[in-house]
Amino acid sequence: MRVELRLAGYGGQGLITAAVILAEAAGLYMGREVVQTQSYGPEARGGSSKADVIISDSRINYPKARHLDVLLALTQEACDKYFQNLKEGGTLLIDETYVTVSPTPQAYVIPARKTVREVFGKDTFINTVALGALAELVEELDHQAVKKALSSRVPPKTLDDNLKAFELGVNLGRKAKDAPPLKPADADL
Amino acid sequence: MRVELRLAGYGGQGLITAAVILAEAAGLYMGREVVQTQSYGPEARGGSSKADVIISDSRINYPKARHLDVLLALTQEACDKYFQNLKEGGTLLIDETYVTVSPTPQAYVIPARKTVREVFGKDTFINTVALGALAELVEELDHQAVKKALSSRVPPKTLDDNLKAFELGVNLGRKAKDAPPLKPADADL
Repeated sequence: MRVELRLAGYGGQGLITAAVILAEAAGLYMGREVVQTQSYGPEARGGSSKADVIISDSRINYPKARHLDVLLALTQEACDKYFQNLKEGGTLLIDETYVTVSPTPQAYVIPARKTVREVFGKDTFINTVALGALAELVEELDHQAVKKALSSRVPPKTLDDNLKAFELGVNLGRKAKDAPPLKPADADL
Repeated sequence: MRVELRLAGYGGQGLITAAVILAEAAGLYMGREVVQTQSYGPEARGGSSKADVIISDSRINYPKARHLDVLLALTQEACDKYFQNLKEGGTLLIDETYVTVSPTPQAYVIPARKTVREVFGKDTFINTVALGALAELVEELDHQAVKKALSSRVPPKTLDDNLKAFELGVNLGRKAKDAPPLKPADADL
């Protein structure tokens, strides 16, 4: 078992924190081997951000993500750029506000940004909503483990809001799973 | 130019955050290529924590740290375990409370934990003190870049305390640099 996940968007969306939480969920609470990586180069200096998580049931000798099983894209640019690295049949999770053109009808589309704006009045916690959706959509992730890792890493004062955001994300993930594939005409969301 | 740093200790000391800050300092504000990695396996489940940062002026093809230029050790276990990965003449930075036996007289010893206890009344910010000391001791790191990355990543409410902790660390690093090598008899601190 080897699962490669990439969380991509722009700096400030909290994707590194989300990746560290996923890594701790799998590494500390699910007994997996995990490597979590972020790279910074010219692109990052343009404001884009990407964090990778590789989860395995055995020692990870090659720590670079090459064939993604899961791609979370929170900007159109990230979606366009990394979709080519997603395996055929891999899970693409996109936000409906930030990503307006899906490269495939098989994408899971969630209104993460819209939801955090409505519920919290700001964009904070969009990463936690995404975590909830990932916990729901990626079968190798255990809800309780992700929740535990989330709880132990976020500032105590924000715990209640984070847990709320997580559950919102779980529900959005469930709805996205039950939604029919995007029609070709809908591929432009 | 390729510099490999490892920050090692136990979970809760904030070493992953410190490593992300170093990576952002070098990647976003110093124009370097950077790969920042944490791995989780059976050891991590025992409570130990380690985060690696590789900084280069060209593309990083091999993203694993193998020959460390810098090792920050905030537990005796981390020091004993990873000292063998430190290059000859590499920089070893240890805390005097957590690491009581130095594997070499050439170590830089700082009272990071003692200082944060005295100044803040708790262990929080020990990672930021360590960051300050690293910024001072590692010539490839630029003070202002580390400060900028620190400022943009910590919660705004903690910014003043973090900047204070950073400066304390810079001073401790400076003192450690000026201190004579540990005498063989002092190797047991």
